[in-house]
Amino acid sequence: MINSKLPKIWYGGDYNPEQWDDPQIWAEDNRMFKLAGIDVATVNVFSWALAQPDEETYDFAYLDETIDRLYKDGIYVCLATSTGAHPAWMAKKYPDVLRVDYHGRKRKFGGRHNSCPNSPTYRKYSERIAEKLAERYKDHPAVLIWHVSNEYGGYCYCDNCEASFREWLKERYGTLEKLNKAWNTRFWGHTFYDWDEIVVPNELSEEWSGNRTNFQGISLDYRRFQSASMLECYKLEYNALKKHTPDIPVTTNLMGFYPELNYFEWAKYMDVVSWDNYPSLDTPYSFTAMTHDLMRGLKQGQPFMLMEQTPSQQNWQPYNSLKRPGVMRLWSHQAVARGADTVLFFQLRRSIGACEKYHGAVIEHVGHEHTRVFRECAELGAELQKLGDKVLDARVEAKVAIVFDWENRWAIELSSGPTVALKYVEEVHKYYDALFNMNVQTAMIGVEEDLSGYDIVIAPVLYMVKPGYAKKVEEFVAGGGTFVTTFFSGIVNENDLVTTGGYPGELRKVLGIWAEEIDALLPGSTNRIVMKESLGTLEGSYECGILCDLIHTKGATAVAEYGSDFYKGMPALTVNKFGQGEAWYVASSPDKAFMEGFMAKLVQDKGIRPLARGPVGLEASRRAKDGKSLLFLLNHNAHAVTAELEAGKAYADAVSGQAVSGNTLEVPGYGVVILEEAK
Amino acid sequence: MINSKLPKIWYGGDYNPEQWDDPQIWAEDNRMFKLAGIDVATVNVFSWALAQPDEETYDFAYLDETIDRLYKDGIYVCLATSTGAHPAWMAKKYPDVLRVDYHGRKRKFGGRHNSCPNSPTYRKYSERIAEKLAERYKDHPAVLIWHVSNEYGGYCYCDNCEASFREWLKERYGTLEKLNKAWNTRFWGHTFYDWDEIVVPNELSEEWSGNRTNFQGISLDYRRFQSASMLECYKLEYNALKKHTPDIPVTTNLMGFYPELNYFEWAKYMDVVSWDNYPSLDTPYSFTAMTHDLMRGLKQGQPFMLMEQTPSQQNWQPYNSLKRPGVMRLWSHQAVARGADTVLFFQLRRSIGACEKYHGAVIEHVGHEHTRVFRECAELGAELQKLGDKVLDARVEAKVAIVFDWENRWAIELSSGPTVALKYVEEVHKYYDALFNMNVQTAMIGVEEDLSGYDIVIAPVLYMVKPGYAKKVEEFVAGGGTFVTTFFSGIVNENDLVTTGGYPGELRKVLGIWAEEIDALLPGSTNRIVMKESLGTLEGSYECGILCDLIHTKGATAVAEYGSDFYKGMPALTVNKFGQGEAWYVASSPDKAFMEGFMAKLVQDKGIRPLARGPVGLEASRRAKDGKSLLFLLNHNAHAVTAELEAGKAYADAVSGQAVSGNTLEVPGYGVVILEEAK
Amino acid sequence: MINSKLPKIWYGGDYNPEQWDDPQIWAEDNRMFKLAGIDVATVNVFSWALAQPDEETYDFAYLDETIDRLYKDGIYVCLATSTGAHPAWMAKKYPDVLRVDYHGRKRKFGGRHNSCPNSPTYRKYSERIAEKLAERYKDHPAVLIWHVSNEYGGYCYCDNCEASFREWLKERYGTLEKLNKAWNTRFWGHTFYDWDEIVVPNELSEEWSGNRTNFQGISLDYRRFQSASMLECYKLEYNALKKHTPDIPVTTNLMGFYPELNYFEWAKYMDVVSWDNYPSLDTPYSFTAMTHDLMRGLKQGQPFMLMEQTPSQQNWQPYNSLKRPGVMRLWSHQAVARGADTVLFFQLRRSIGACEKYHGAVIEHVGHEHTRVFRECAELGAELQKLGDKVLDARVEAKVAIVFDWENRWAIELSSGPTVALKYVEEVHKYYDALFNMNVQTAMIGVEEDLSGYDIVIAPVLYMVKPGYAKKVEEFVAGGGTFVTTFFSGIVNENDLVTTGGYPGELRKVLGIWAEEIDALLPGSTNRIVMKESLGTLEGSYECGILCDLIHTKGATAVAEYGSDFYKGMPALTVNKFGQGEAWYVASSPDKAFMEGFMAKLVQDKGIRPLARGPVGLEASRRAKDGKSLLFLLNHNAHAVTAELEAGKAYADAVSGQAVSGNTLEVPGYGVVILEEAK
Repeated sequence: MINSKLPKIWYGGDYNPEQWDDPQIWAEDNRMFKLAGIDVATVNVFSWALAQPDEETYDFAYLDETIDRLYKDGIYVCLATSTGAHPAWMAKKYPDVLRVDYHGRKRKFGGRHNSCPNSPTYRKYSERIAEKLAERYKDHPAVLIWHVSNEYGGYCYCDNCEASFREWLKERYGTLEKLNKAWNTRFWGHTFYDWDEIVVPNELSEEWSGNRTNFQGISLDYRRFQSASMLECYKLEYNALKKHTPDIPVTTNLMGFYPELNYFEWAKYMDVVSWDNYPSLDTPYSFTAMTHDLMRGLKQGQPFMLMEQTPSQQNWQPYNSLKRPGVMRLWSHQAVARGADTVLFFQLRRSIGACEKYHGAVIEHVGHEHTRVFRECAELGAELQKLGDKVLDARVEAKVAIVFDWENRWAIELSSGPTVALKYVEEVHKYYDALFNMNVQTAMIGVEEDLSGYDIVIAPVLYMVKPGYAKKVEEFVAGGGTFVTTFFSGIVNENDLVTTGGYPGELRKVLGIWAEEIDALLPGSTNRIVMKESLGTLEGSYECGILCDLIHTKGATAVAEYGSDFYKGMPALTVNKFGQGEAWYVASSPDKAFMEGFMAKLVQDKGIRPLARGPVGLEASRRAKDGKSLLFLLNHNAHAVTAELEAGKAYADAVSGQAVSGNTLEVPGYGVVILEEAK
Repeated sequence: MINSKLPKIWYGGDYNPEQWDDPQIWAEDNRMFKLAGIDVATVNVFSWALAQPDEETYDFAYLDETIDRLYKDGIYVCLATSTGAHPAWMAKKYPDVLRVDYHGRKRKFGGRHNSCPNSPTYRKYSERIAEKLAERYKDHPAVLIWHVSNEYGGYCYCDNCEASFREWLKERYGTLEKLNKAWNTRFWGHTFYDWDEIVVPNELSEEWSGNRTNFQGISLDYRRFQSASMLECYKLEYNALKKHTPDIPVTTNLMGFYPELNYFEWAKYMDVVSWDNYPSLDTPYSFTAMTHDLMRGLKQGQPFMLMEQTPSQQNWQPYNSLKRPGVMRLWSHQAVARGADTVLFFQLRRSIGACEKYHGAVIEHVGHEHTRVFRECAELGAELQKLGDKVLDARVEAKVAIVFDWENRWAIELSSGPTVALKYVEEVHKYYDALFNMNVQTAMIGVEEDLSGYDIVIAPVLYMVKPGYAKKVEEFVAGGGTFVTTFFSGIVNENDLVTTGGYPGELRKVLGIWAEEIDALLPGSTNRIVMKESLGTLEGSYECGILCDLIHTKGATAVAEYGSDFYKGMPALTVNKFGQGEAWYVASSPDKAFMEGFMAKLVQDKGIRPLARGPVGLEASRRAKDGKSLLFLLNHNAHAVTAELEAGKAYADAVSGQAVSGNTLEVPGYGVVILEEAK
Repeated sequence: MINSKLPKIWYGGDYNPEQWDDPQIWAEDNRMFKLAGIDVATVNVFSWALAQPDEETYDFAYLDETIDRLYKDGIYVCLATSTGAHPAWMAKKYPDVLRVDYHGRKRKFGGRHNSCPNSPTYRKYSERIAEKLAERYKDHPAVLIWHVSNEYGGYCYCDNCEASFREWLKERYGTLEKLNKAWNTRFWGHTFYDWDEIVVPNELSEEWSGNRTNFQGISLDYRRFQSASMLECYKLEYNALKKHTPDIPVTTNLMGFYPELNYFEWAKYMDVVSWDNYPSLDTPYSFTAMTHDLMRGLKQGQPFMLMEQTPSQQNWQPYNSLKRPGVMRLWSHQAVARGADTVLFFQLRRSIGACEKYHGAVIEHVGHEHTRVFRECAELGAELQKLGDKVLDARVEAKVAIVFDWENRWAIELSSGPTVALKYVEEVHKYYDALFNMNVQTAMIGVEEDLSGYDIVIAPVLYMVKPGYAKKVEEFVAGGGTFVTTFFSGIVNENDLVTTGGYPGELRKVLGIWAEEIDALLPGSTNRIVMKESLGTLEGSYECGILCDLIHTKGATAVAEYGSDFYKGMPALTVNKFGQGEAWYVASSPDKAFMEGFMAKLVQDKGIRPLARGPVGLEASRRAKDGKSLLFLLNHNAHAVTAELEAGKAYADAVSGQAVSGNTLEVPGYGVVILEEAK
């Protein structure tokens, strides 16, 4: 548990006082932080240029003063290493820190996320400043946690990356023969005879439009390599920090479903996962919930930090609407309900210049506390204080798991054919959403996760099956588990080479089917999934689209069939009894109604009950520790709704302590109720 | 007055006889010019390569002959300096004349607008050829005016520009400390410790997609710098010309609302403003009128030159439809009605090769005069001769002014948040359009303009408030003026740094309000402006959108309020009595009906009367001098309409001299009537 | 006739056994080829890197073995020279083989179509390997034909190309004076004084967005030059092959209406035309038919090779749907019906890695023959064997010809104005489609083709009229022919310089009209073509759009007039009697109903009869030789239709030999019937 030094939900956020050289403003900040119940400030995120004005000078006077000033007023710090953007002098003196972009252009100084992860200069100086910070603040009582760099991301294609990529490939493949095989380079006569013939895959070589490639093998490996290169930078800082402060936890702020980094790999080297939650205007709240669950899943359920969210407005969306009254609180509790032990904002005081000045803050440009936004922040601050340590380190338990894998995602997105309409994350969300709407708690897991704790494991579009994974699924099913996968699964191995002998490749055995062809539907066209008999509420017929696998049962039972086209009557949904369990195959991408019926049937078969019942928009999540549990009821509607609780339990409001009578409860519009449960 | 040597509305246009090495064609040209009443030809626009075939050779024989040949037939010249496109040999020998583009690519020879404005070579040779032309033609009686370069535009991002930018910044800020402050470089750790660390802001550094930037400060300054750099080129030529021909006026052709150059700065160095009017197919005629008014406003109402328009067709629109019969005359008189003292075409004879060969011309490819286009040109030529000097130098008087500022535009377009839907020029046009439809004469003014002559000053989206401007507004209102501004005004200073203490910053005092939050509406969403009581025709409720400021009155009166959302009931329109006048704040972007009612109310309060009344599409404009005035009535409809004139005046047709009886008048479809008015 | 060594329709396709180093798989391949009736394999397409692992080593062991193994089982080879993609080592050692792209970027190794056509290295080594292959396999009985490189395409803009372009221009123009004239360089002052001042036209100089240019002259010449440069590469290999194997035919696979290469020029150096037929999902079947006819027209009607098509699925479309049952056979026979003497697939066995692994193949990933796709392939194989040599070398006879010219296409696409809506290929297709729907056989011809064999010649949008072509048309019409052309014709010469004196320039005499203006219509706007009297089924009025020429008759008769706008009543369709024939001018782009009525009238006037009658979707085509003919009936509908045959003939099924009774015949859904005809 990271919160031991400050045993409550940490509350605060990014704070950049260096943008104001004004003691009066700093004093105001502290005054207002206290008014708002803020006890944690994330500092030093972008102060590299300030702390290191040239190659040999380091000056932490400003940081000393900041941390002391905060701590004097009871505010702890999340201390960043400042390496998220390199100084201008460094770019001028050592251009190797500058990236070459996807279009092959050497960049000049500017922006952030701007350092080449294989730049010797960047690695040297980022590690060095991390170590200097650790030495300096290792005993400061204010320091709760280290925040390495900021929102790692973006790829580089420079000569240093090219050279490092070749070394990485040597490490991975050993011989060129193996590499040529893995990348199938005899296609289009691309055989490599010397490692130095390999060039980075971007718009100047094998790729175009970001995710289009001639060779999936090299493109997939380059994503692995860039993710690993950046992770290497993180680890250099991590180790430098740990050398001096072995007991202070270290994190870096992730970005949910961010496509470019394999966060399951990263999480192995993070003491705690933290992430920045910026839903877009059209993000469904179940998608936000799924993202929280994924972030929790990165470390097998360990609670995480909500490192950033906006108090009200964003600035980089095309249309930045205000969070409606109550919504900031609602979304904060949604994070906590799903595993967050912190509620932190970007930012505590609004910048007055540059591109984030129209991003919301606890202290707005007007500068005083008499604003709607501040009032809502202060109310939440007070509530979190009342909540104390009740939720800290409590776990979210789930019997249903959905598999998500970044490398599978890369492979699907890089695929040339059969359809551009297939979006992996959307397919995953379809399954999640159906479970969410039933208030069935779901875990988001990676492919290295042990499956034995789950009743149901769903792996939508498991296109890439890694070594041993089919075996793991077989064991899970044989032991009584329910496994679900879909069209376009089991197609390739970890190098994106097709498993011959019939789709879905290594999954054929457990699924008991053969997929002969895969039809891609035009936009607007659909087929139908026609149930052969009712399965609970799953009856009649449903729309489906995107891809339709033309499958033959090889042991499985066809539960539904296609309703039209030349493959009318072929199986659209199959189930295969395998050992003690069963394995389902959904041959196309179904509509929402099918999903809900299908998930309801599976869940019911396993005796898994919803956490609460209520109308659409009522979200429930439970966190438990030490035999106690908290039930969060969150109402995403603007109007009040009634939640129906599990009978036979006693409930009390976790904030007020008041007992709840009966087993129904009204949750106000955009409201949140947190209940302590007792049997 | 520029027209003294040829005291009538100059008529003619761009003429490139060098494209035909054929005396017979030249003779035909002169014959047809005379047939069409053409008396001015713009020559030498793109002849640099011809006049200077290599670095040291100058040969003006062709130009001598051209000017003499024209003048012999009574045709004067607008003499261009030919520096709008550099010669190919220069690009080869001195690559510094070639630009580096926004994407960071060094260009090769090609196109026009192709010279780097900070190229030593370009500056040296453009100045030199201007001087040579001045020396040679200083006493030629044909020369009416100098036309420097052509349609300046486009930015460069080369190393010479980078070095010059640093010098320009040193000049502007003096110290890096001030620059760092102005650009808020502590954001994202961008502090500069050496001037040479500063790089040009383009897609390789701080910007992307043309108008997106990480740092508004540097991007804004780069726009200022490039506009100034090009102006510097213009001034070098201007001074070279003036040295030898102090009495011949100098101009360069502008392009209306062209975004990249701050024309208010440019106009200070132009003896007369001239511009090229190429409405797009979807340009409203009130937008064209507004653009004429802006061009007139650049030099505080001084008449301008219509330097280019097409006789019929354009070539670079996606769909180049013909100007319908009568429309060329209609749009020519629209220019004159709003301040033009010339009617010039691009082009007199159509090219037969390269990209403008499908651009219309007085002499079409067929080569003879028996075309619809030529007939219409000749009829207009005859009419302008009859009109003589009646309109020359006459002024357009307006009691209503709309403020337009290029730097404000840049800042708004560079802003990250709150919405991409906000288009400054469109918001300005909404106000203009409402006044235009009432035939209320409006001036388009810059922020340096004295306000004392106006009754009403409207500054839509005055996002950037420059030093002293708030004071100027306060004095104007205190003195009895009516001031109007809108949502997202008063936010930043001239460096795009937010004025803290509450929006609308420096304008809070005169407006008597505080804007606490700014909500951005999704596309398709709207709110309503609900009038608390009727103000003239302004009653009931209206639609509004884009942004909604959530304001509190601090002395002002709420005249209307929002009709929905959580800020329902908050003020949407306020008025503040301030001294003898009043200041209005429109908190959202209203619909057309609101605009018309609101403008009608303000105008009525000030006793400003329409120039004429009639159905939609009847435009009226008045030009006056020496106590006399001409009233232009222009019918943008295909059908005839009836105009209702001010009673109690006597009117006579300015072309025919015939008196008009009664105070109504029919204006034919696409027709124009010019009336001499007498009290 | 190319098929003499294997006198039947060759059946097979691209085969890349080097992707599997597995004798068991190779044995399976042969077994399945025989099952499917496959007798030709295209090998060595992408094996350059394999055969030449470094600069001096050549190793054809693998190829020897492949060819022997195939031939042993009776499978012949189409032997590729493998130069469609250069080896990685070559790119590393000799970067001159790498292209510079349209954006000015030097590419790195990757993809295919990747060699600069003016690279000394590429030319040297591609010629050398072609010669080595010819020497080695000149006496191998398996070799049927040479397949040079693969799908030539793409342009390069490197320094070698720039230097070669200058040489090419010297050759073409002789003097800079002539070049300056041809390109009209006095426009925008672009006069060249030295050949070295000329730079390649791409996004760094004169062009942007692919087909937009400032100077049509240079852009047109660059297209000619690049097409010629690549053809030069082809010819180097062609000559190297012919040196050793004068009797083995040589081809390269073309791509139908591929825009970048002038295939009429290429076909002169090809022994037989071959092409790859990959209809997009929205390609009308009449467009595919037109493309076959064009490929046949490249060599004046000589039969061609269908070199590639997919057995079922593509991979590079956005949505890759399966070919429905029967459709592969239908489209194969469509090719044969229109002149193909081969039916070849890409590919015989599916790749397991890289970007084409989801492209269909005869042998799918499952690896066995029990698939729908394989069954359909095998059925077609059997049918083609039964068909024997009946169709080989038979000709398609046509009395109607449609003119298509790549240089005209380039010029139209490069034009700045009057409209972006004009698509040359689409206009050509409109005429073709009307004839196709009547089952009137049509030839697609180039501008060098002799016209004397045709009754009707249609030249839609003949914008560019090359030297002598107007004369050729006059002679054709004078001799009794019917000529049709349209709006925006006769405008420019071969350098894209306008023919002055009135549109349609050199075609004015034969057409008897003058086009004064050309109006471009906005998207969604239309005019009407109103018939002045009925001409057969052409009566009443029709919609038209895109462009409307405003024409005056100068000898011609106005047959129809515009129905609206200010040019209502002006001629919209004219016919001019000229000698024994007549010349029609269609002044706008008409709707489908007009086209069908107009084509029906012309065809009827000439007594040309349909090959068969039936509902929409019934396609007929005839091939004849030695006094015998085969009539192909192809049903593009999913349901059966009845075809009405010409009376008075005897018909027998060409495959089964069974006589057909009566003169109607049912063709099944997606079905094909091939009839032997006898009088």
